[in-house]
Amino acid sequence: MGKGRLEAFSDGVIAIIITIMVLELKVPHGSDLASLVPLLPVFLSYVLSFVYVGIYWNNHHHMLQAAHKVSGSVLWANLHLLFWLSLFPFATAWMGENHFTALPTAMYGVVLLMAAIAYWLLQQRIIAVEGHDSLLARATGSDFKGRLSPLFYIAGIALAFVQPWLSCALYVLVALVWLVPDRRIESRIERK
Amino acid sequence: MGKGRLEAFSDGVIAIIITIMVLELKVPHGSDLASLVPLLPVFLSYVLSFVYVGIYWNNHHHMLQAAHKVSGSVLWANLHLLFWLSLFPFATAWMGENHFTALPTAMYGVVLLMAAIAYWLLQQRIIAVEGHDSLLARATGSDFKGRLSPLFYIAGIALAFVQPWLSCALYVLVALVWLVPDRRIESRIERK
Amino acid sequence: MGKGRLEAFSDGVIAIIITIMVLELKVPHGSDLASLVPLLPVFLSYVLSFVYVGIYWNNHHHMLQAAHKVSGSVLWANLHLLFWLSLFPFATAWMGENHFTALPTAMYGVVLLMAAIAYWLLQQRIIAVEGHDSLLARATGSDFKGRLSPLFYIAGIALAFVQPWLSCALYVLVALVWLVPDRRIESRIERK
Amino acid sequence: MGKGRLEAFSDGVIAIIITIMVLELKVPHGSDLASLVPLLPVFLSYVLSFVYVGIYWNNHHHMLQAAHKVSGSVLWANLHLLFWLSLFPFATAWMGENHFTALPTAMYGVVLLMAAIAYWLLQQRIIAVEGHDSLLARATGSDFKGRLSPLFYIAGIALAFVQPWLSCALYVLVALVWLVPDRRIESRIERK
Repeated sequence: MGKGRLEAFSDGVIAIIITIMVLELKVPHGSDLASLVPLLPVFLSYVLSFVYVGIYWNNHHHMLQAAHKVSGSVLWANLHLLFWLSLFPFATAWMGENHFTALPTAMYGVVLLMAAIAYWLLQQRIIAVEGHDSLLARATGSDFKGRLSPLFYIAGIALAFVQPWLSCALYVLVALVWLVPDRRIESRIERK
Repeated sequence: MGKGRLEAFSDGVIAIIITIMVLELKVPHGSDLASLVPLLPVFLSYVLSFVYVGIYWNNHHHMLQAAHKVSGSVLWANLHLLFWLSLFPFATAWMGENHFTALPTAMYGVVLLMAAIAYWLLQQRIIAVEGHDSLLARATGSDFKGRLSPLFYIAGIALAFVQPWLSCALYVLVALVWLVPDRRIESRIERK
Repeated sequence: MGKGRLEAFSDGVIAIIITIMVLELKVPHGSDLASLVPLLPVFLSYVLSFVYVGIYWNNHHHMLQAAHKVSGSVLWANLHLLFWLSLFPFATAWMGENHFTALPTAMYGVVLLMAAIAYWLLQQRIIAVEGHDSLLARATGSDFKGRLSPLFYIAGIALAFVQPWLSCALYVLVALVWLVPDRRIESRIERK
Repeated sequence: MGKGRLEAFSDGVIAIIITIMVLELKVPHGSDLASLVPLLPVFLSYVLSFVYVGIYWNNHHHMLQAAHKVSGSVLWANLHLLFWLSLFPFATAWMGENHFTALPTAMYGVVLLMAAIAYWLLQQRIIAVEGHDSLLARATGSDFKGRLSPLFYIAGIALAFVQPWLSCALYVLVALVWLVPDRRIESRIERK
């Protein structure tokens, strides 16, 4: 089974997710600077989520480049990842419109955490198809960032009930770490 | 006539359908747990519909892999399927926002039933082009799941006026049965 | 210049147009049959527009299959067509929500007319690139349906101010005529 | 790393942006001509933005045709461009609904300016990968339009606080200049 349609479908869903998030930036009725101020937290959470969805698209792109064929379970592991990504617009808007209060900020972390787990599951399914000796298996062997991120998300979820801004700082930090694309796979492809 | 654009267009429409359903998860104004509670039935119906649309994409993917060319009538049978799939967001939101009352739950079953019939019609049109001796014709010869599902949907529609939760149980059951991808086609491709 | 991305982009835009029209089917607050009744005209106009957008996608598909390369002016003629198609959701919802009153029904005809003109312009631009001796030029030489449709749309626009239901009958009639895919191009490709 | 998925993802995002802008054309409740009048500025700003997004898609198409491979930094420069394009629907609706008052008109110019800068950055990243001797580097060597446009946007932003209609005139002027597709790259490809 080819991976072309899996990539195309994922691209479509991720493109829609990243774009409809902007619909939560409701056009204000006034036309002065004061009417823009309440939008600032919504805008900031939009930027953060845009970067996160961008990171997922980027890494998804890299991961599937290392894959050669997909099985039925890969298709479903991929849909599972897309499900959690599809909750980004909701989680982003809820956090932004409530100005980063405790529960919405924790919930945002839960969505980040579940997406990370779904991504890891997808990776495991692909490795199961490709073989444990495959490019992807070796490239992610010492998956430092992948293993650390969930810990940061869990810390962020817990901290949200103490000081939500600390959670946001953690979410931003993880995003910055991931902004560097997954060079492990890229470099292994080149070396080969 | 190639099937590439048919796949790409279907992927696009299905990707949008699966994603805009999440827009019905309206962001609540409060930021406490109580403000999330009324969203729970909407969320559950979203999960169910996400799985159903995922199943359709999955099976559509498999069916078109077994096809080699498409005719004008295949294009229209495909658009007919996409039409019923496009009613999923409406049916999902109506059922969820009314907390699974009788008529919306029955209507959800009607959309499921019409989509199943449209899928079967599309399959027949493709077999008509491919020939009754083709891979797809043989793979779907004893289409057990495909023949049983409509009966369950009809039962679900009827039961909605007695006990809607039984309808939902039936819809969930059919979804679980279909979660297993269509191995018939896959295995025949491999055997060939 | 290849035509691949032109097709992909058009598929994307048309897929979104055909899908977001369904968002105008606002989920009713009640859950009885009476709350569905006011949606009926919106639903009927949705079905009509779904068929029209489907026809455009179908014919666009056929036309580009007969094309081999695209120029800058083809790209813009294509965007011009997509612009008028993008007004379908608005025109559809306005006509449906006002229960087919005069002005919205006439406006729907205007959008149909402009889309038909834009399609014809795109066809001329492609023929200009392909040559007047090309497959497409010969296939559309006696473009009976293409020449007649605008006359029906104009009649529909005028009749809307007398009896809007007659306009709708005309719009439905033209849609039915076009439902038959453009066999001219298909048959010529086969004959070749 | 191939450029196929980068093109497909960009096409998806741009297709969605260009289409969801039309959702800001809220369907009026009345059905007479008077109820359409308040939509006119929203419609005009929609037309302008449709043309701008069309220009970006067109030039993006041309630029990537001259590219052969993409690096991680190209992926992020591309996402950065898509981010600013994603703000078009918001900026368009805010300007249109406020009938081209000062701040929204200036803000529209800011989004145009940032998108232009993001496009230039993406071009630089691609040239860095392709080499300064590449087709793209030579084709954009005397990038007259690309260098002039930001100056016009800045002038438009400043003028918005004096006379917003002058800003709009500038924005329209730049759009008209860009409507001519980027023949530099096209002609160089042909000459080669």
